[in-house]
Amino acid sequence: MAGTYSYRIGPRDIDASLRARLYTMGDLILGAAGDDADMLGFGVSDLNLGNASWVLSRMAVELRRLPSRGEKIDIYTWVSDYGRLFTTRNMVLTSEDGAELGAAVTLWAMIDLDTRRPLDLSPLSGKATSLVDREPPIERPRKVGTPTAGRNADGDSSCAEDLVEQPYVVVYSDIDFNGHVNSMKYLEWMVDALPAEVLAGMSSVRFDLNYLHEATLGETLAICSATDSAATHLFDIRNATGTSICRATITPII
Amino acid sequence: MAGTYSYRIGPRDIDASLRARLYTMGDLILGAAGDDADMLGFGVSDLNLGNASWVLSRMAVELRRLPSRGEKIDIYTWVSDYGRLFTTRNMVLTSEDGAELGAAVTLWAMIDLDTRRPLDLSPLSGKATSLVDREPPIERPRKVGTPTAGRNADGDSSCAEDLVEQPYVVVYSDIDFNGHVNSMKYLEWMVDALPAEVLAGMSSVRFDLNYLHEATLGETLAICSATDSAATHLFDIRNATGTSICRATITPII
Repeated sequence: MAGTYSYRIGPRDIDASLRARLYTMGDLILGAAGDDADMLGFGVSDLNLGNASWVLSRMAVELRRLPSRGEKIDIYTWVSDYGRLFTTRNMVLTSEDGAELGAAVTLWAMIDLDTRRPLDLSPLSGKATSLVDREPPIERPRKVGTPTAGRNADGDSSCAEDLVEQPYVVVYSDIDFNGHVNSMKYLEWMVDALPAEVLAGMSSVRFDLNYLHEATLGETLAICSATDSAATHLFDIRNATGTSICRATITPII
Repeated sequence: MAGTYSYRIGPRDIDASLRARLYTMGDLILGAAGDDADMLGFGVSDLNLGNASWVLSRMAVELRRLPSRGEKIDIYTWVSDYGRLFTTRNMVLTSEDGAELGAAVTLWAMIDLDTRRPLDLSPLSGKATSLVDREPPIERPRKVGTPTAGRNADGDSSCAEDLVEQPYVVVYSDIDFNGHVNSMKYLEWMVDALPAEVLAGMSSVRFDLNYLHEATLGETLAICSATDSAATHLFDIRNATGTSICRATITPII
């Protein structure tokens, strides 16, 4: 499974600096994954028939530059390997002049839509011919720990000490076709929690997202954030029972 | 100025019912307006050079059906007239089988980006040849009054009596390339304020938006809403000084 998908950066994709937003780039990357999987009979629209669906487990993206309004970008995507529980799908982003804009590595599990439990991917082995023998273009998604060493007691919904805490209630526009919060919404909330001057200075960046649990309409979440001495922004989004829903780091690339 | 622009409904455009969201349709309609204006040397990218910009003043959209994921839609757009302060731009939306999905009428003013004041459009009369002699496809955008007869005293930021009030703080992801809240974000907040069962039952619908003032990053707004006896949903978004920023109605089409 591999293919190239083209997108144009439109007015709704850019911010006041006239460059694409971080989570728009994430949306396009996930869009290419969906388009490629659909194209080859391996996508959500096929799998829903069997009452199963791909879910994103981890994602790492490195961007050297954020494209501007009107730019056309190409996303080449391929599946490099899969194990019993996860497949690895990679992306390379290029601009119209052929320069590499960035790259991504994503890990996906397949879940049963009734039980929401992961499925064994072994029965898909007949499709192994669709694997492409090309290594992931950047370091695989990192495991993100709790942002501080000290962890709160179970059932405590508040952020760990020393973290900035922002409450958030999940609304209709956050929910995607799965009935759960859209993967890129977590990144959007994290970016919204960053100071304006940090966002304005952001150009060459890496982000790592770990998806740990699902969140649904009406849930109250806590967006916990901190910035470490290396200027890495750390995030932990927790639900009302203190369970981490999504953790991430956003790191400038020097 | 007239042209047809095609868009495909992607995964990020749909909700759990697998149909496009109301404000996604609004985004596409405004995207077609921008694409057409740019194409013909009359767009934001030209006007910014002269330190002026088009701003949306009113918008009316009627949709007979919300398209599904993967559907390709065509948006034909044309400018039918302009006066001293406003131009009228129209849109007709069709699906791949040629059926009409809906239509829109939008009113635009041009503002000086330094003073934020409207400009006289008379000097543009040389471009009058670009007008298309075709009437707006639906009733022009209605003027939306305050949702109840009783109006609060000036300087009171709270909603008028009997309205549901929801506070909202403007974040980074709400701001567009103008440095102000994106026009469709107001509609998104309004839709988010509707009960889930209302949204699930929404298919054939008209909405009218009046843009009265601009809102910027960090402002605290009040989203005031009510539903009248004809099942019309009324909205009034106010800033901290009680000034209406955006008013709207969302009405089922019987």
